[in-house]
Amino acid sequence: MIQKRVLLFTGDGKGKSTASFGMLARALGHGMKVRVIQFVKAQDGVGEMLFFSRFENVTWDHYGKGFLPADPTSPMMESHRQAARAGFEEALEALGSEGYDFVLLDEVCFALSKDLIPLEPLVEAIRNAPSKIIVLTGRNAPQGLIDVADTVTEMRMVKHGYEQGLLSQAGVEE
Amino acid sequence: MIQKRVLLFTGDGKGKSTASFGMLARALGHGMKVRVIQFVKAQDGVGEMLFFSRFENVTWDHYGKGFLPADPTSPMMESHRQAARAGFEEALEALGSEGYDFVLLDEVCFALSKDLIPLEPLVEAIRNAPSKIIVLTGRNAPQGLIDVADTVTEMRMVKHGYEQGLLSQAGVEE
Repeated sequence: MIQKRVLLFTGDGKGKSTASFGMLARALGHGMKVRVIQFVKAQDGVGEMLFFSRFENVTWDHYGKGFLPADPTSPMMESHRQAARAGFEEALEALGSEGYDFVLLDEVCFALSKDLIPLEPLVEAIRNAPSKIIVLTGRNAPQGLIDVADTVTEMRMVKHGYEQGLLSQAGVEE
Repeated sequence: MIQKRVLLFTGDGKGKSTASFGMLARALGHGMKVRVIQFVKAQDGVGEMLFFSRFENVTWDHYGKGFLPADPTSPMMESHRQAARAGFEEALEALGSEGYDFVLLDEVCFALSKDLIPLEPLVEAIRNAPSKIIVLTGRNAPQGLIDVADTVTEMRMVKHGYEQGLLSQAGVEE
């Protein structure tokens, strides 16, 4: 019997999505059924997806188009919004479903902070979800998500390899 | 070709070990050979070990005896120290080896902060290690490890389910 839990990983440091993938491994170790919905991210060949999507208990989709245009009025914004809305509909369904023990909404805070998806229906869906583990990630978490979560960690960047000119490395950033 | 990287996850919040397990999944997604050495932790049945230790590319050991006695002069301290020293020897060997692409020293900061193992030889071994991804976790990271790491995240606890009376949950804490 799973106790309902809502965990939120936010902040500007490395480790938000990676922490959620570690929890996912734990959940699979206990035989749980897992649903992953990634916002914003567009890549297919990243290590976590290569690794986890081969397991029968994992359903993994991403609904991102990559980096957002700096100008929120850019016409390109509409395709990002459409992708995020499709992920949002999937998220509401997964949260309400008895078919999953663990639902990860990766980068959902980022999608919320850019107004790609609305906050209130998501908070409601989390509040009304049957018992499962819900994990939310992304920088700039809105207060509504902080309030609905039982466990919130802020990943604070102390230093990052980027600053020292290090490149993105498979197994670390991807 | 792997770029040498040293990542450190510290702080009092949830997500340090879990972030390292997420990176481990990424590394396995890229076919890397992984060595995990856990300090302090004693449990066998936890989700991450159940899950990851079944993969051929993973060598996983823990050298812990669980919670430390509050009194550092307790005679029980000696068995903790011996276990940590055994893990420390393994860690030095793994860091120096060409046989691993990814070395995770889980809770090594905690073992250092309790003086179970010495800092200087570890910093030297990290500095001299051939190209690989090195991941260090645990609260109270000593300055020597912060200095030798290229990427440091402090996981700051904003709130935790414990405070609200929630119990440890498989897939979340274990």
